[in-house]
Amino acid sequence: MQNNETLHLLTHHRSIRHFKNQPVPQDTIQALLNAAQRTSSSMFMQQFSVISVTDPELKKQLAEITTYPFTKSSGHLFIMIADQHRNEFIGQEAKVSTQLLHDGDRSLAAFDDATLAGQSIVTAAESMGLGAVILGSILNDAQQVIDLLHLPKLTFPVFGIAIGYPDEKPDLKPRLPLKTVHFENYYQEPDQKLLDDYDQTIHDYYAQRGSNNRSETYRHHILHDMQVSPKKRFQILAVLKKQGFFEN
Amino acid sequence: MQNNETLHLLTHHRSIRHFKNQPVPQDTIQALLNAAQRTSSSMFMQQFSVISVTDPELKKQLAEITTYPFTKSSGHLFIMIADQHRNEFIGQEAKVSTQLLHDGDRSLAAFDDATLAGQSIVTAAESMGLGAVILGSILNDAQQVIDLLHLPKLTFPVFGIAIGYPDEKPDLKPRLPLKTVHFENYYQEPDQKLLDDYDQTIHDYYAQRGSNNRSETYRHHILHDMQVSPKKRFQILAVLKKQGFFEN
Repeated sequence: MQNNETLHLLTHHRSIRHFKNQPVPQDTIQALLNAAQRTSSSMFMQQFSVISVTDPELKKQLAEITTYPFTKSSGHLFIMIADQHRNEFIGQEAKVSTQLLHDGDRSLAAFDDATLAGQSIVTAAESMGLGAVILGSILNDAQQVIDLLHLPKLTFPVFGIAIGYPDEKPDLKPRLPLKTVHFENYYQEPDQKLLDDYDQTIHDYYAQRGSNNRSETYRHHILHDMQVSPKKRFQILAVLKKQGFFEN
Repeated sequence: MQNNETLHLLTHHRSIRHFKNQPVPQDTIQALLNAAQRTSSSMFMQQFSVISVTDPELKKQLAEITTYPFTKSSGHLFIMIADQHRNEFIGQEAKVSTQLLHDGDRSLAAFDDATLAGQSIVTAAESMGLGAVILGSILNDAQQVIDLLHLPKLTFPVFGIAIGYPDEKPDLKPRLPLKTVHFENYYQEPDQKLLDDYDQTIHDYYAQRGSNNRSETYRHHILHDMQVSPKKRFQILAVLKKQGFFEN
């Protein structure tokens, strides 16, 4: 089997949710941003932006939205922004139609770019001994995040990334059997037997791990999360459209 | 400035579009899939799948869609799939409502998961001396890709990744000035002066690079790509909805 430092990092990723009380130095943040900027971008249109949230009051408000205290107590907090606003600005300067930027196609492209760059930030952080967690939970109230960060039309907060010096080393959480997620040539329907095996694996993992033990299978987890969701998450498509995305 | 092997990789990424005629070995593909699976996933719902396209006829048809011959001639071809179908299967087994999986919220989550895992694959590939290019161009005909790969409801092809042994070493393409994409606390409107400087940088890059020289600024590029698009890309939102995504 192939191995190297980067593969080791990528195959040992765990999300970190407890950080030491220690800020991330500026040159480290610069390295993270360099990695984000060098990431592939759909049609070289660079359809993302990054906001570093440093204001304690803003952090507190974002932490209330995510419900996670480490949103404000991590060493650094990025918010990844899907951004066609900059390209619309260029179109408006030149007085050409910018309608295409509002389409499903270019909406997805902006989310892709922000997400790809976000994953580069996570990997770059881990390579420097930092830990990170992706905070999809900022979407518990997308509209409030938009208001707090002064996000204009054709921008949208995709997720946050809390970064800092790890104060925990969680066990590696087992993933679905590869056969249920990787196929050759054609999509394959889920296999109940493989899901049964994985239910047992996850049950044993939760029973035996170092902290927050519980009795739960993978199916339990999925069934719970497909039935319960914070109220404002049901409005995300409406907020996307209000921001000018997915118009057509 | 911080440095290590992984940071070096991330900050020296260039998309590779010319590959040696050499397949990627199975243990290397396994390492790429391990990296993909270990990537963060929204709410641990593992909402993505990966298809390895190995059938020459399928590759040929995909290459026609992307218009890029290297789609069929690279060492390996992955298609990243946003996937809530597996979770819907679990819901249907248990006879509970799966409506939430069709929402904008969980639609974005599936695209996030597939995209994050895709970036891990690119980074993992580069760490083993391979080159890669992300093929958003499969969306030139999303419906045909869905048909070719037998993609069921609640799945969608996000992008392809062509991987192989590089047969070129393109220059590093300069990115937007950091000040135009990174902000502190609040979004900042684009600065014309910084875009002017960057136009000059990109103009010089295209004039001087090793191949495919041309006279073009960044604004030229953006203005072109916001006005011209393959016809079926205008139907992407309709295809997303047909697949059961972004229903609400």
